[in-house]
Amino acid sequence: MNSQWRLAQRPTGLVDDETLRLTSQPVPELKEGQIRVRILYLSLDPTNRVWMNEADSYLPAVKIGDVMRGGGIGIVEESKNPQFAVGEHVAGLLGWQKYLVSDGTGVSKPPPVGIPLTAHFGLLAHIGLTAYFGVLDIGEPKEDETMVVSAAAGAVGSLAGQIGLIKGCRVVGIAGSDEKCRWLTETLGFDAAINYRTEDLGEALKRTCPKGIDVYFENVGGKTLEAVLEHININARIPVCGMISTYNQVNPEPGPRNLSRIVMKRALMQGFLVSDYMPRAAEAVRDMVGWYLAGKIQFRLDIVEGLEKTPRALNKLFDGSNQGKLIVAVSPE
Amino acid sequence: MNSQWRLAQRPTGLVDDETLRLTSQPVPELKEGQIRVRILYLSLDPTNRVWMNEADSYLPAVKIGDVMRGGGIGIVEESKNPQFAVGEHVAGLLGWQKYLVSDGTGVSKPPPVGIPLTAHFGLLAHIGLTAYFGVLDIGEPKEDETMVVSAAAGAVGSLAGQIGLIKGCRVVGIAGSDEKCRWLTETLGFDAAINYRTEDLGEALKRTCPKGIDVYFENVGGKTLEAVLEHININARIPVCGMISTYNQVNPEPGPRNLSRIVMKRALMQGFLVSDYMPRAAEAVRDMVGWYLAGKIQFRLDIVEGLEKTPRALNKLFDGSNQGKLIVAVSPE
Repeated sequence: MNSQWRLAQRPTGLVDDETLRLTSQPVPELKEGQIRVRILYLSLDPTNRVWMNEADSYLPAVKIGDVMRGGGIGIVEESKNPQFAVGEHVAGLLGWQKYLVSDGTGVSKPPPVGIPLTAHFGLLAHIGLTAYFGVLDIGEPKEDETMVVSAAAGAVGSLAGQIGLIKGCRVVGIAGSDEKCRWLTETLGFDAAINYRTEDLGEALKRTCPKGIDVYFENVGGKTLEAVLEHININARIPVCGMISTYNQVNPEPGPRNLSRIVMKRALMQGFLVSDYMPRAAEAVRDMVGWYLAGKIQFRLDIVEGLEKTPRALNKLFDGSNQGKLIVAVSPE
Repeated sequence: MNSQWRLAQRPTGLVDDETLRLTSQPVPELKEGQIRVRILYLSLDPTNRVWMNEADSYLPAVKIGDVMRGGGIGIVEESKNPQFAVGEHVAGLLGWQKYLVSDGTGVSKPPPVGIPLTAHFGLLAHIGLTAYFGVLDIGEPKEDETMVVSAAAGAVGSLAGQIGLIKGCRVVGIAGSDEKCRWLTETLGFDAAINYRTEDLGEALKRTCPKGIDVYFENVGGKTLEAVLEHININARIPVCGMISTYNQVNPEPGPRNLSRIVMKRALMQGFLVSDYMPRAAEAVRDMVGWYLAGKIQFRLDIVEGLEKTPRALNKLFDGSNQGKLIVAVSPE
């Protein structure tokens, strides 16, 4: 039997018990060319919430009644497709379910780089590649520049900041708890961290970025962006990875009132999606694994046990209660 | 005697009679190395209003009591500087006054391209170069793409749109009156024009940009940007020339609520200032003059007579009542 989380209605704010419905049905027999994948881990990301909205984003909205879209890693349990052998690991948009039956479209094999399966989520996959290309391709950090990262204790933000450190920047993280801030400075080596819940962000940026901000790795939008814009230097670069403050709201937070700062400071804001960088994935994998094995980059995982907890777990990304890359362990390796 | 407009107090909205004070004082004797310039024309631009604010922009704020900063063209009437001959024309930040005494710093000579002096403001100077580099260097319009220009009947916007047409784009202008819209479509050859005061901007963009928007030449900000972002294509480019809706307000209009569209669409927003392109000015002058003489680019001038009318005239840029590049004729050529 398969268990599947299906979108029941579009949420207006956070996901609640009415948003998705857990259904049960037999796994269909494989046709020629198909594989059956048992899902091991699902990756929970802000983009899952975006896909529940009615409007299409970079992918079409998930339709009411459809299995919820989500990235994951699984193991091939049965194969009628010569490209996939039983026992191989596969990754892709496997969906919020126990089993996926697929002809292999959009399903790839994690690069064989000798790291644990869960580490793919923490270091590589869309998370690591987003941080890598956003920072290096758009942010272009130079030695002794100042880089600020919002949602800095998040999966992408923590890697982005560490890449900034590797490139010789002064790195300042913005996060939502003292514990997260301590992790950033004491464990990851950030030069400073700001708890936006307890500090005045403008004052704190002024104090921690005395030479202004050259690169801002943007995950949040709204008032955070507004505060950062007040401190950007000429020719600042702002890779826009996401704007989580606006995904989840019935009435999204207004944009920054001071967007004209990007004129005064000749700044660049560039939105990007990791999918556009897939042809260059090998570059990122090589560097990220290299840095990881050299002890220059770390990550932590927040693993939730059980497919049934998936919808509620997603909300942790929005209230900031996750501590590390949020993963659901669906079935044992 | 010199007449000079000096900043008396910082305006909170539009400029009023209390903002500047017209003072009178003798023109000082020239010292060695100095020139006396009689000012012929002043250029009025949104940036003048920005410079009156307390906060520094890309230039320091004008100090209370100082002569108001402004660009203009004048004629050298007396020279103790071998680099400038009596009777030569000069351009630069000459100030809102009848005479400038200067050592020549920041004063240049308009390129000798055989067009009338006033045409420099309409076609070249900061106006033409802003349009040229914003469109070509950041917008990078390609044949058959769709380009939208806000403040399209303005001095910069009308040139920007025409450069888009020269590059083979479908060009849609946003302006504030039916007369301006007719000028854009009937005289300049824009493919469509939208009167934002009488039409729903979102609907009108949908109708006039059926293939979406690839380049948005941004002059306005706020709700206009918000409406445009709903219709941008993947990899859209947004050269940010200015955000006039935010310059003049006690409480600036909020930014667009949907700024996260630049992530979904991998769009680029890039602020720029013409001053950064000065080393490449010759490129722009060559092309712009060539297009003008070939009849491919037009402009119109709105000339206000008399230095004493300068402060009030500036407000025309903000209520949209100017028709063409706004210039003050200070003294006869």
